[in-house]
Amino acid sequence: MPTAKVHRISAQSPDDVSGLDTAIRDGRIDPAGIVAIFGKTEGNGLVNDFSRGLAVRSLRALLDRHMATEAAAAVCLVMSGGTEGAMAPHWIVFERSSKAAELQGPALAIGRAHTADMPPEELGRTAEVDRVAAGVRAAMHDAGIEDAAAVHFVQIKCPLLTAQRIKAAESRGKTVAVRDTIKSMGLSRAASALGIGVALGEIDRATISDDRIASDFSLWSSVASASSGIELLGHEIVVLGMSPAWSGPLAIDHGVMKDAIDVEPVREALVRLGLAAKGQLARAQEQRLEAVLAKAEASHDGQVRGYRHTMLDDSDISSTRHARAFVAGALGALVGRTEIYVSGGAEHQGPDGGGPVALIVRRPG
Amino acid sequence: MPTAKVHRISAQSPDDVSGLDTAIRDGRIDPAGIVAIFGKTEGNGLVNDFSRGLAVRSLRALLDRHMATEAAAAVCLVMSGGTEGAMAPHWIVFERSSKAAELQGPALAIGRAHTADMPPEELGRTAEVDRVAAGVRAAMHDAGIEDAAAVHFVQIKCPLLTAQRIKAAESRGKTVAVRDTIKSMGLSRAASALGIGVALGEIDRATISDDRIASDFSLWSSVASASSGIELLGHEIVVLGMSPAWSGPLAIDHGVMKDAIDVEPVREALVRLGLAAKGQLARAQEQRLEAVLAKAEASHDGQVRGYRHTMLDDSDISSTRHARAFVAGALGALVGRTEIYVSGGAEHQGPDGGGPVALIVRRPG
Amino acid sequence: MPTAKVHRISAQSPDDVSGLDTAIRDGRIDPAGIVAIFGKTEGNGLVNDFSRGLAVRSLRALLDRHMATEAAAAVCLVMSGGTEGAMAPHWIVFERSSKAAELQGPALAIGRAHTADMPPEELGRTAEVDRVAAGVRAAMHDAGIEDAAAVHFVQIKCPLLTAQRIKAAESRGKTVAVRDTIKSMGLSRAASALGIGVALGEIDRATISDDRIASDFSLWSSVASASSGIELLGHEIVVLGMSPAWSGPLAIDHGVMKDAIDVEPVREALVRLGLAAKGQLARAQEQRLEAVLAKAEASHDGQVRGYRHTMLDDSDISSTRHARAFVAGALGALVGRTEIYVSGGAEHQGPDGGGPVALIVRRPG
Amino acid sequence: MPTAKVHRISAQSPDDVSGLDTAIRDGRIDPAGIVAIFGKTEGNGLVNDFSRGLAVRSLRALLDRHMATEAAAAVCLVMSGGTEGAMAPHWIVFERSSKAAELQGPALAIGRAHTADMPPEELGRTAEVDRVAAGVRAAMHDAGIEDAAAVHFVQIKCPLLTAQRIKAAESRGKTVAVRDTIKSMGLSRAASALGIGVALGEIDRATISDDRIASDFSLWSSVASASSGIELLGHEIVVLGMSPAWSGPLAIDHGVMKDAIDVEPVREALVRLGLAAKGQLARAQEQRLEAVLAKAEASHDGQVRGYRHTMLDDSDISSTRHARAFVAGALGALVGRTEIYVSGGAEHQGPDGGGPVALIVRRPG
Repeated sequence: MPTAKVHRISAQSPDDVSGLDTAIRDGRIDPAGIVAIFGKTEGNGLVNDFSRGLAVRSLRALLDRHMATEAAAAVCLVMSGGTEGAMAPHWIVFERSSKAAELQGPALAIGRAHTADMPPEELGRTAEVDRVAAGVRAAMHDAGIEDAAAVHFVQIKCPLLTAQRIKAAESRGKTVAVRDTIKSMGLSRAASALGIGVALGEIDRATISDDRIASDFSLWSSVASASSGIELLGHEIVVLGMSPAWSGPLAIDHGVMKDAIDVEPVREALVRLGLAAKGQLARAQEQRLEAVLAKAEASHDGQVRGYRHTMLDDSDISSTRHARAFVAGALGALVGRTEIYVSGGAEHQGPDGGGPVALIVRRPG
Repeated sequence: MPTAKVHRISAQSPDDVSGLDTAIRDGRIDPAGIVAIFGKTEGNGLVNDFSRGLAVRSLRALLDRHMATEAAAAVCLVMSGGTEGAMAPHWIVFERSSKAAELQGPALAIGRAHTADMPPEELGRTAEVDRVAAGVRAAMHDAGIEDAAAVHFVQIKCPLLTAQRIKAAESRGKTVAVRDTIKSMGLSRAASALGIGVALGEIDRATISDDRIASDFSLWSSVASASSGIELLGHEIVVLGMSPAWSGPLAIDHGVMKDAIDVEPVREALVRLGLAAKGQLARAQEQRLEAVLAKAEASHDGQVRGYRHTMLDDSDISSTRHARAFVAGALGALVGRTEIYVSGGAEHQGPDGGGPVALIVRRPG
Repeated sequence: MPTAKVHRISAQSPDDVSGLDTAIRDGRIDPAGIVAIFGKTEGNGLVNDFSRGLAVRSLRALLDRHMATEAAAAVCLVMSGGTEGAMAPHWIVFERSSKAAELQGPALAIGRAHTADMPPEELGRTAEVDRVAAGVRAAMHDAGIEDAAAVHFVQIKCPLLTAQRIKAAESRGKTVAVRDTIKSMGLSRAASALGIGVALGEIDRATISDDRIASDFSLWSSVASASSGIELLGHEIVVLGMSPAWSGPLAIDHGVMKDAIDVEPVREALVRLGLAAKGQLARAQEQRLEAVLAKAEASHDGQVRGYRHTMLDDSDISSTRHARAFVAGALGALVGRTEIYVSGGAEHQGPDGGGPVALIVRRPG
Repeated sequence: MPTAKVHRISAQSPDDVSGLDTAIRDGRIDPAGIVAIFGKTEGNGLVNDFSRGLAVRSLRALLDRHMATEAAAAVCLVMSGGTEGAMAPHWIVFERSSKAAELQGPALAIGRAHTADMPPEELGRTAEVDRVAAGVRAAMHDAGIEDAAAVHFVQIKCPLLTAQRIKAAESRGKTVAVRDTIKSMGLSRAASALGIGVALGEIDRATISDDRIASDFSLWSSVASASSGIELLGHEIVVLGMSPAWSGPLAIDHGVMKDAIDVEPVREALVRLGLAAKGQLARAQEQRLEAVLAKAEASHDGQVRGYRHTMLDDSDISSTRHARAFVAGALGALVGRTEIYVSGGAEHQGPDGGGPVALIVRRPG
């Protein structure tokens, strides 16, 4: 019976991997078991966010020192740029220990898959949906989760288009789905999210066509989280869920915010996980909350509960940055901590303007 | 017995005063009673925020059509730029009706004062503190509030330095506190906030010296809100509080956030005002909450509860914009609405990294 | 024989119309002759640029004080946001005086036309191209210019789509070219630019189809400048050229930059206008250069003469802002002045990555 | 007799060191001779510019593969962020070959020095000036240049303050010169530039006091170039000049722009170097121009030749970004190429609003 471990480590900069290094040296983390690392890094979270590349390079160098080359290369590194507002940059290290824990399952289970590099012309189209759906099924299998309802978070790192990649595709006589590089990030996230929904049976594959991707937001997955980054050409997929085949004190659940201030479903998930609080979590509760993983975005109708927002009309700051800052404030006030992971660009990831929020809690035991 | 009325009106753009126009035409607002208008406009809230000027020009044109010239000119127009995150642009119109309401006081009371033009060399120094303290006392008197503890929000619009004003002072052999005109805005806000604290007995005047203004942030007022503008040389002061001499259904109270996620004091103020909720306010409660008036800023130590924030190191987005977005998320999630007024630049206005939050509620009656 | 006058007036802020006011009061400008005012204002030149609205409101108020209502309303106000780099905010007032000047023509001629309101479904399609072509011909006629080769600059203000306009079209069973309102701005500029090219014989109408608009940038006009605005449903067209029917000291010519550093064609146009200089214009020459009107944009292939630029991958600053700053530097260094008018968004307005540059010079006399 | 070599290599991204790798593998660059690498990288050039750190990390990894550890560590890596406008990201590799060239000197000479780590409280104060002056003298000695007049460019990479570093200093009871991290970049550059001026006899050390640093811009060096970066705590200094002790085809000279469009002194320096052109350099001339190294900044009086600029009032885009874009346009149009190195923040580096421009040319031979 494997045991999932989750280590949240503060980062002083995008290349500050000293906390992880110390944890490995101190024996708190067995590097051989590292499956994935999520990073909330402090760039703009958009096309020219070099904090992600810097983080990946720093993490790879560290892993290479502590792990066999092939195993290090297999670790999923999902860097989500943008710690707007008071969000705190940090790493979340997912470890799979083969040692069974005292506490029996069902417990948190972790699965992983990598898809092959994708040609730029497939980005944001049904071809990407199908690639991702296959990858999610592989990651569920890797996690030992059979029931789609037991999946509470699927994180995907997907590629984006750059001027260079567009040129490469066009030089081969292909067209790309969009020539605007910022928009390519949204399209790739959108196709990836739909792929998750298809794999989990939330969305009927037959309803998806190219023109509904990043367009018909009535299609959505309740557990999808996709981030696009310049540093990869394929997809890295991590599935988090509950499995009777895993042991240990960690449990995961999720809620779906239906708009940017809809925190009550998150509070209900906290209650289900044993963290009931009238208002903000008390300090002792907050300390049992290992990780908060959320998606945020600006609603496309330009409104929240009937009131206008200006995120989509601000040509100085991307709406993804506005949305991350705002939703991080909403969730930070709920859980009493700013070291939370709120990722932007939530196309088909939760309902339009809202988003899924997964919570990992350490059960007493 | 006068009655205070508060009208919150959505704005579709910085020059959209149609809602106010309609309210006047429909008789819901008596223009003769308009004391002040606060505006949350959608610019960047910084130096080149033209949404404020556009709003003021539009409001002045409207008031000139509906009011006598002198009365229109006396209306305090306080435009706060920056509706980051999902904050909704809106106007808050404060009206003083001489008609007594059915519901007896104590009730919301509104007072106003204009101070005389101030010589530039006094800006950002104890002389400004003293001028403002006197002005706040005058506004309290105007509001019929005697007890400083009954004051829950003081909004001040204060002057700034320009090259011309500096030159004028220096030609008289005087020195100014700062020659950087942008910095003069912060100094003027700081001195104004300290003046409020002195008037209300929160801060001992003897502890204030020139070098502690905009520097020693351990000195702060719990109800101060200051913004500086180029269009005036004196101070426009609006005091909001509770007075037994006023009638009507409106009541005001306030809480002080000690950091960017510290919403529990605000929840407690809501409870005191009769809006007790386990989590987010229910729809019926939210509709009784007429206005939320808050200040927000990035903590100068770069942390929130021990976790790093990146607001002060972001050269692309001002920390004031980050802070407004984040705190608006925290407060919006608490009250269940995004049409709230969160203003940045909070020198001595609440503790470092936190800020005062005033709430105006319509009592059942 | 009419005489064209061009008044370049510095602006201290978007609502600083004092220079124009003074010029009218001093008799240097006869308000009855004002045909158009171009403004370079200091906003971001994008969706939330409130400097343009503030400028228009200020100019309209001034014109209403000095002109008959109908004549004031007919003045074309073309506000171009974005004075990036060291560009100086300013107004260019075009006046048509019926008094013949001593200096005989050919001289600068100004023509104006307003087209009828256009149904939303025609926007960005060949129907708009045809409307604009007819309008340009009308404006040429108004200017007394018969030879297309004598036209050196055509400024068009064109409409955009809003949700309401789209709805109106769709309720009549029509489809619009694009449902994204921001994209409609580019489409409308593109169709307008092609319409100019058609009217002037630069582009064969037969080669234009809907799908080449804002797409095939090998089609372009050498004198087109278009900007879209929400405040009109038709087109406002100003044609500048040389006509033997006009008198006075002003002359206009133009060059076409084929990339962002291609200033030699502009230098050649200066030479043709009598301003020959080895390097930068001398002070006396610069003072005879009344106006510089240019378009700039980032090349879509991401390169300038084989070297990569990063304008299209910068998610913090729009490429239009980068391009304006850079091209303004190139042109400012050539002419020895920063009070020049460089406008962004140059679809079909000059070759991809380049743009037309018109120059108005006062001849000795 | 050593020979200086300069290799200009395009970069496709901040971590694209493939061009340098190929040049080494092909034998065009002898890694043992690499003295310094200047990089123009595509971040914002401000506090949170992670493109510089990513570039440094990538270059270090490459150098470590090709050089002995100690020699690799000694290579000065000066990354200047910000390729605004159409500026092209690139590397400039400075190589010192011990093999004498056919062409006798005087020729380009290169010297280098590193100073020790500096405590944050010295930044922006006379202590930093003195550290730098000593370092520049050491680098001149290393270059074999005795005559200060033969020095044409001094590049310094200096540190900046972060919230963390300020905290560290303050925890030791020290005060820092400024708590605003963006402003710390300017202060550090200012003190470094004054240190250069002192070392070269351009500025009398006795005239410099803390309060004149970044304040009295009548003090300036004509060859200073300083960039601040988060990635170092000491100073890296590279001196470029002409020396009779060096051989080879390369020559260097410089001009000083006195404002943002003052390109004529640069044209004169090109003429002195054998590149006389009426307008823009012809293609064959441009190809002999190995490197353009310039500084740019917004003038503090808010004007260029009497016309207002808006760079200092733009709260969305730093004035350093505006100035780089604009001056790059001016210089790019002069030399006919966008792969030029324009660095921002020119405090005491040339006159206020202007800056030094160094040119390295390959002489026929």
